[in-house]
Amino acid sequence: MTLKSYYQEVRKHTRELCSPLNTEDYIPQPEEFVSPPKWHLAHTTWFFEEFVLKEHLENYKVYHMDYSFLFNSYYNHVGDRTVRENRGVITRPTVEEVYRYRSHVDEYMSVLLNNQLSAELESLIILGLNHEQQHQELLITDLKYTFSLNPLFPVYKKGFSLVNSHDDETGDFVDMEAGNYEIGVKYATEGFYYDNEHDRHKVYLNKYSIAETLVTNEEFLEFVEDNQYEKFNHWHDEGFAWISSNEIKKPFYWHKIDGKWHEYTLGGLQEINYKSPLAHISFYEASAYASWKGMRLPTEAEWEVASDQFEWGQRWEWTQSAYLPYPGFKIAEGAIGEYNGKFMVNQKVLRGASGATSPGHSRPTYRNFFHPHHRWQLTGIRLVK
Amino acid sequence: MTLKSYYQEVRKHTRELCSPLNTEDYIPQPEEFVSPPKWHLAHTTWFFEEFVLKEHLENYKVYHMDYSFLFNSYYNHVGDRTVRENRGVITRPTVEEVYRYRSHVDEYMSVLLNNQLSAELESLIILGLNHEQQHQELLITDLKYTFSLNPLFPVYKKGFSLVNSHDDETGDFVDMEAGNYEIGVKYATEGFYYDNEHDRHKVYLNKYSIAETLVTNEEFLEFVEDNQYEKFNHWHDEGFAWISSNEIKKPFYWHKIDGKWHEYTLGGLQEINYKSPLAHISFYEASAYASWKGMRLPTEAEWEVASDQFEWGQRWEWTQSAYLPYPGFKIAEGAIGEYNGKFMVNQKVLRGASGATSPGHSRPTYRNFFHPHHRWQLTGIRLVK
Amino acid sequence: MTLKSYYQEVRKHTRELCSPLNTEDYIPQPEEFVSPPKWHLAHTTWFFEEFVLKEHLENYKVYHMDYSFLFNSYYNHVGDRTVRENRGVITRPTVEEVYRYRSHVDEYMSVLLNNQLSAELESLIILGLNHEQQHQELLITDLKYTFSLNPLFPVYKKGFSLVNSHDDETGDFVDMEAGNYEIGVKYATEGFYYDNEHDRHKVYLNKYSIAETLVTNEEFLEFVEDNQYEKFNHWHDEGFAWISSNEIKKPFYWHKIDGKWHEYTLGGLQEINYKSPLAHISFYEASAYASWKGMRLPTEAEWEVASDQFEWGQRWEWTQSAYLPYPGFKIAEGAIGEYNGKFMVNQKVLRGASGATSPGHSRPTYRNFFHPHHRWQLTGIRLVK
Amino acid sequence: MTLKSYYQEVRKHTRELCSPLNTEDYIPQPEEFVSPPKWHLAHTTWFFEEFVLKEHLENYKVYHMDYSFLFNSYYNHVGDRTVRENRGVITRPTVEEVYRYRSHVDEYMSVLLNNQLSAELESLIILGLNHEQQHQELLITDLKYTFSLNPLFPVYKKGFSLVNSHDDETGDFVDMEAGNYEIGVKYATEGFYYDNEHDRHKVYLNKYSIAETLVTNEEFLEFVEDNQYEKFNHWHDEGFAWISSNEIKKPFYWHKIDGKWHEYTLGGLQEINYKSPLAHISFYEASAYASWKGMRLPTEAEWEVASDQFEWGQRWEWTQSAYLPYPGFKIAEGAIGEYNGKFMVNQKVLRGASGATSPGHSRPTYRNFFHPHHRWQLTGIRLVK
Repeated sequence: MTLKSYYQEVRKHTRELCSPLNTEDYIPQPEEFVSPPKWHLAHTTWFFEEFVLKEHLENYKVYHMDYSFLFNSYYNHVGDRTVRENRGVITRPTVEEVYRYRSHVDEYMSVLLNNQLSAELESLIILGLNHEQQHQELLITDLKYTFSLNPLFPVYKKGFSLVNSHDDETGDFVDMEAGNYEIGVKYATEGFYYDNEHDRHKVYLNKYSIAETLVTNEEFLEFVEDNQYEKFNHWHDEGFAWISSNEIKKPFYWHKIDGKWHEYTLGGLQEINYKSPLAHISFYEASAYASWKGMRLPTEAEWEVASDQFEWGQRWEWTQSAYLPYPGFKIAEGAIGEYNGKFMVNQKVLRGASGATSPGHSRPTYRNFFHPHHRWQLTGIRLVK
Repeated sequence: MTLKSYYQEVRKHTRELCSPLNTEDYIPQPEEFVSPPKWHLAHTTWFFEEFVLKEHLENYKVYHMDYSFLFNSYYNHVGDRTVRENRGVITRPTVEEVYRYRSHVDEYMSVLLNNQLSAELESLIILGLNHEQQHQELLITDLKYTFSLNPLFPVYKKGFSLVNSHDDETGDFVDMEAGNYEIGVKYATEGFYYDNEHDRHKVYLNKYSIAETLVTNEEFLEFVEDNQYEKFNHWHDEGFAWISSNEIKKPFYWHKIDGKWHEYTLGGLQEINYKSPLAHISFYEASAYASWKGMRLPTEAEWEVASDQFEWGQRWEWTQSAYLPYPGFKIAEGAIGEYNGKFMVNQKVLRGASGATSPGHSRPTYRNFFHPHHRWQLTGIRLVK
Repeated sequence: MTLKSYYQEVRKHTRELCSPLNTEDYIPQPEEFVSPPKWHLAHTTWFFEEFVLKEHLENYKVYHMDYSFLFNSYYNHVGDRTVRENRGVITRPTVEEVYRYRSHVDEYMSVLLNNQLSAELESLIILGLNHEQQHQELLITDLKYTFSLNPLFPVYKKGFSLVNSHDDETGDFVDMEAGNYEIGVKYATEGFYYDNEHDRHKVYLNKYSIAETLVTNEEFLEFVEDNQYEKFNHWHDEGFAWISSNEIKKPFYWHKIDGKWHEYTLGGLQEINYKSPLAHISFYEASAYASWKGMRLPTEAEWEVASDQFEWGQRWEWTQSAYLPYPGFKIAEGAIGEYNGKFMVNQKVLRGASGATSPGHSRPTYRNFFHPHHRWQLTGIRLVK
Repeated sequence: MTLKSYYQEVRKHTRELCSPLNTEDYIPQPEEFVSPPKWHLAHTTWFFEEFVLKEHLENYKVYHMDYSFLFNSYYNHVGDRTVRENRGVITRPTVEEVYRYRSHVDEYMSVLLNNQLSAELESLIILGLNHEQQHQELLITDLKYTFSLNPLFPVYKKGFSLVNSHDDETGDFVDMEAGNYEIGVKYATEGFYYDNEHDRHKVYLNKYSIAETLVTNEEFLEFVEDNQYEKFNHWHDEGFAWISSNEIKKPFYWHKIDGKWHEYTLGGLQEINYKSPLAHISFYEASAYASWKGMRLPTEAEWEVASDQFEWGQRWEWTQSAYLPYPGFKIAEGAIGEYNGKFMVNQKVLRGASGATSPGHSRPTYRNFFHPHHRWQLTGIRLVK
């Protein structure tokens, strides 16, 4: 596939994700960590305008002077930006206008992509596409969050669900030997990798056994019904304080209605599929559950070196590992360097991928990361003993 | 004018206020005290469905079972309601659907209004229309608030402004004699009045002199430039704490750009009209300004009994009076009784009306009320000495 | 009594209030609105040093340069002051040293008081003594608040109680005629009055009937047991939000233990005396109770003009009136002017006095004031119909 | 040294730390994470009563039934406990009484220690002594925090300072080879170790160079004067948000007075000793400084395996490592098991020891941990490249 087709495919996927939306759905931002669809559309476009077209396409004229300001996210290097918590207030430019902005940028990207590009520029564009794929996953999970607050339980698309997947038989454990392993990606390796996946390096692991399958809704329900949300023993101190003060007693989108467990999905409210892998839990819940089972979560190294021995990709799997730089990790110069390194504190690594992950955007070295209390991603549990 | 025409006129005015809006503009709720246009449209309609049609039109079928839940505001008597701070998240029903809801209710109201109605039912409908007029003022001032947070300073309608009004020459003071006066409205008086305007009662007033004109932008600028926002002397203790912790140094929509004072209006950013009456200040600022001038704000009784001796209606004028029940005030039974009484603590009375007040919705006995720190209404200052 | 004896008596009373305290008890400040006994001791002394001795006693040397800074309260005119919420951190100077400071100031005040003083200076000293009496009441009610947080329910003095008073038979109502009355104190009247009690002025009152006795614990218990803390109907909107978010379901110091109602007193935990007047409730609770009884709270004018027809002095009685300046009220120049006027917003007037009020510090024109949610004073309810 | 002498020595050291205190100093708790000296005295005593005497000394009678409740800290297994933020309110029991409680427990511990004890019981007592040593360090650093809020800058002991230490010449870097190393402590090893130091395990390390000396005040001042507190580039995103919203522009106890840098010490305010190792900085500041120097912080494994090649013990040295369980880490049964594991999220490991660490309480495998924003410990920086 040429870079141009790749570009067009990724950009098209974003539009397709939005096709079931009404204009109204593009606007709200219920929490600071959730962004409106319109913002995702514009921000991913801004990336190509700001870092690619402005720098590399001769005579390119910026579409609208203020958009850099409005649709920048955390790139401090690129000047002022809208206060993050105000993204839901920006009704102008309209959705239609944002789509015009996308078309404009796509058109000039097409021009650029017809040229012979330097390897460096190609890398930058590929970074932009991966960036857009990350926002695709956020777009759909953010939307689920926003919709879930509407007491009418809106339907994004009939029959659609991010979480319903094939039934899992609870599987066995894979035994792994102790020894030196290698994880991560070598610098200058072909193919796209985020900076946080470098540098490939050795780790010593003790022996361990890792589950072939994820914890299911049914299995987690036992934890709920054993009242483990009320007993401190298996929780981190901060985790227990967090569930107590937020009155959390179940996974994020679960509702008990007339004695039956339901969950909100993008296809609307539905009965829980007990055989599906559990989703939408925090690290605190994942860790408490593992402790209650007398097991633990894997480290990210344990996960990576065993990952060819089990199926993965249905859930982002919480690991025990804190999100930290790999040995030899270097922060790139300038705005692009703001991509990953500055988030390396107080977050946990998640491995795998989810039903919301864009096609072609997963690999065994991928390091996703969230704060331990976040639950709006499709997060799940794989046990280690 | 028949009640039917009156009904149609008020309802039409709401739609007209919204005519310059894009679909996107109907959605955001940046602060709990600000409601989205869509919510105002639906809530005012719900009032007629809930209190009029459901009770008084035979065989009326509720348009949508859930709307009572979604578009109720503070009427605890009528069951659960959406968490107030979540109004900006409710993208479904769509704007179009809300307009359909309006049409549906209007149609059945038409049917009802073709009948001979009891005096009581007429009163109820008139209350609903006054309720809608209040929401018209909120709709447009809420919108101004929301738009003002967009760094692009959006234009609602070119050339439109709520605050630009005729130039005021600073006028004289009217001298009022001491003595017993009467304020408020007699129970059972003809015409519409809110319950908080009853009962007409005597008050004894000392002599006083009240300004014929409102404080202008120019006059208030002296206060700003005398650095009175940094000196505690003329402020209430809570007022000074409030401006300090919120870093407030000027009226709400003022911006100093390249050394020149501008203000955000619904026609966009424009230079300040120095001769216009000041708008968008809190009670704290109004009171500090008056003290700095060696004067004070009027009480609501002083305002009312002198109100035929000056022009009013350009600004909601802060009074010194706390919002309290008049002697003989009675709370009505049921949900309608929740209208006013329960807000009678920690609020200040404002008298007059503003450029945002709906036609036919002002009178000298009208008691508006807001918390002392609120600034998003068109609030101004009239001095007394 | 000479001014000198008056001075000595008031100062001695403060020391006597502290006599049952351990050194430890002088230190904590659990909430910003509660001050430690040590601070009360020092601050009242500082008043005499700052405003009297420094200005009026020749060659007086300030005891310690930093104390003005440490023990100033809200007098912005007198320079910086310790952050209010940090009063409980100031372990040095020690309690003993603060008593030395008191003795030092008392000694020089004695010297001054042996002289012939101007009327103005005498007024200032009398103001200082009234100021100290106010702090005496705060000292003991603050202490009750602090002690109440200790799960051991400490005893200040055995058998001591601020709230146990003679049993009240529920009395009749006094009928008052409509007409013009006068309230407040004439400027230049003999005797001490706070500036907020001036100027004497006419008010017109409708006829009303006011209870001869206060609401008792027994009567209020019916309200509690009728679950009125869970029903919104009789509450102000802000009041109901406040009790809900603070999970308030009973008067401040009440505890239900093994099915029996107790209350914390400075003599320790004891069973409730059902016949005693209710104490330690907020304005919100007082107002909701009155509404539930189909009655209301008095205005401060109604209270004052009827006050010679009932016994008062056991509780600070919440009135319906907001704390506002009387007609003709003038703020004094300089720091002394900061006494009262700047608090005249968002507070409610209380009339009467309490078991914690210092002897000689009550009169029918006295205007006490607190925010509507405060409960740590001995606040009670007198009904009007 | 016998266990009995060891016990007596540790217990005496706590008393000696308190000997310069006034009674008042034992009381305040300015922040939830800071405990009053009285609480430290009582809580460490409670540990011996609760876990040792009650279980292992026949006929031991608890000194006071309520103390278990008052002086428990985070041991959820042992029933209710005082709300942590209310420790500063508990004036009773008095300081004297708490010393009596200590003597009582010491007396009975003496009885117990005269007996032949099981190895398990000895271990428990040794754990209690190490627990007390941890609290000794907290006691003195908490006290510094509390004193620092007093504008008089109180003196704990003249000439005393936790931070002034020998002048450091900026040293060289030690080069370490890549390879497998072992860190941690083998289970069942002799001597005392916390559970979090187990199990000894292999780690693979890339080659690195680690500084022989700590960053000095002088070196850090360059960072301050280069305005790095205002530039986002070298900060974690959360770190920069934290310094911005807290207006942090310098190490914790630094004050610039008349153009000269001072720092608050327990000997009072003094000029900064530029050659001393920097103290009282957060992980965020440590990490930003390292990045600004083009280097980084060590991991805890890097620190441990090189620790015999440099002097350490003056500062708790922030590492890059998150506080996580070692491979094979097991949580003990019951209350003792609550010691460490439940804090293993969102904290950073610090290695070394400080001028406040009790004698005999440091070793190269020791894993201290704090949240990344905490600054009241004697935290410093060792660079790695």
